[in-house]
Amino acid sequence: MRNLPLSKVYQLPEPGPVVLLTTASKGHANVMAMSWHMMAEFMPPLVACIVSNADYSFAALRFTKECVIAIPSRKLAHKVVGVGNCSGEDMDKFKRFGLTAVPAKHIAAPLIAECFANLERKVINTRLVGEYNLFVLEVVKAWIDPTQKTPKTIHHHGYGEFIVDGKRIKLASKMP
Amino acid sequence: MRNLPLSKVYQLPEPGPVVLLTTASKGHANVMAMSWHMMAEFMPPLVACIVSNADYSFAALRFTKECVIAIPSRKLAHKVVGVGNCSGEDMDKFKRFGLTAVPAKHIAAPLIAECFANLERKVINTRLVGEYNLFVLEVVKAWIDPTQKTPKTIHHHGYGEFIVDGKRIKLASKMP
Repeated sequence: MRNLPLSKVYQLPEPGPVVLLTTASKGHANVMAMSWHMMAEFMPPLVACIVSNADYSFAALRFTKECVIAIPSRKLAHKVVGVGNCSGEDMDKFKRFGLTAVPAKHIAAPLIAECFANLERKVINTRLVGEYNLFVLEVVKAWIDPTQKTPKTIHHHGYGEFIVDGKRIKLASKMP
Repeated sequence: MRNLPLSKVYQLPEPGPVVLLTTASKGHANVMAMSWHMMAEFMPPLVACIVSNADYSFAALRFTKECVIAIPSRKLAHKVVGVGNCSGEDMDKFKRFGLTAVPAKHIAAPLIAECFANLERKVINTRLVGEYNLFVLEVVKAWIDPTQKTPKTIHHHGYGEFIVDGKRIKLASKMP
């Protein structure tokens, strides 16, 4: 995996792909699927996300204040759905779904080798966790897999329906 | 436009489309383009979004505590980019881009007739506005245009690059 400048991070979660979130607590790594996330600042790249207190990852995220957001391409869609359908309380999801945990640089939560992007994140604000399960995170390190060129992501529409990235179009936007 | 049950709202913003946000303040309606938003709760449908204090809409949103999120299909992409490239401080963007403002039911901010979905929202939490420009909103009424069937949305990848919705796939997800 290759380093990605932090100033380019926002282009990865902004379009709304389904992502995988990894945590590590007491030597136990876990992974969940997530669609409720958004960019919150360009630099340093901040992200907000909702991790339900009903999710097994919630306690690990709250306690360790660290996670990795890994972005899977369409090829991993079946594994992503499998990850989302079960709880890490009952099994090692990495082993179960054939996902390869790779040590991160700054945090204990692992990267996922099969994903085309991995973002190491630290929780920087928990003020809305009690009310909305809303975490604010800062991306401290970003990785991309240069061998996965123009990966297509998937977008969740509910009840097993996903839309895969389609045509790329260029418009005269002045926005970064 | 037809009423959409609030329990189905989350399926609209969750996949990360570029949306339009309208406000109305002192009789002046305005519209901006936005990609930084996410679902925060199913029912009542809560949404979090970032509206920069550099945006002209920021003051209206903060003051009136109301907005509409309208979701445009790919056909409106050029108008959406036009809206994003200029400020309502200088012009009436509805007139400029040929967007039709329609009265909402519960709030003063207008719906946009050309969009396939319109969500009337009230700001319910501003605790992270000062630090992150992060608003938490509740959807109080949702509308869909039944004549726009399976509209394709656009997803922002930065610097004028957008990806249009592609193929729809069905996977065995147990998630709502």
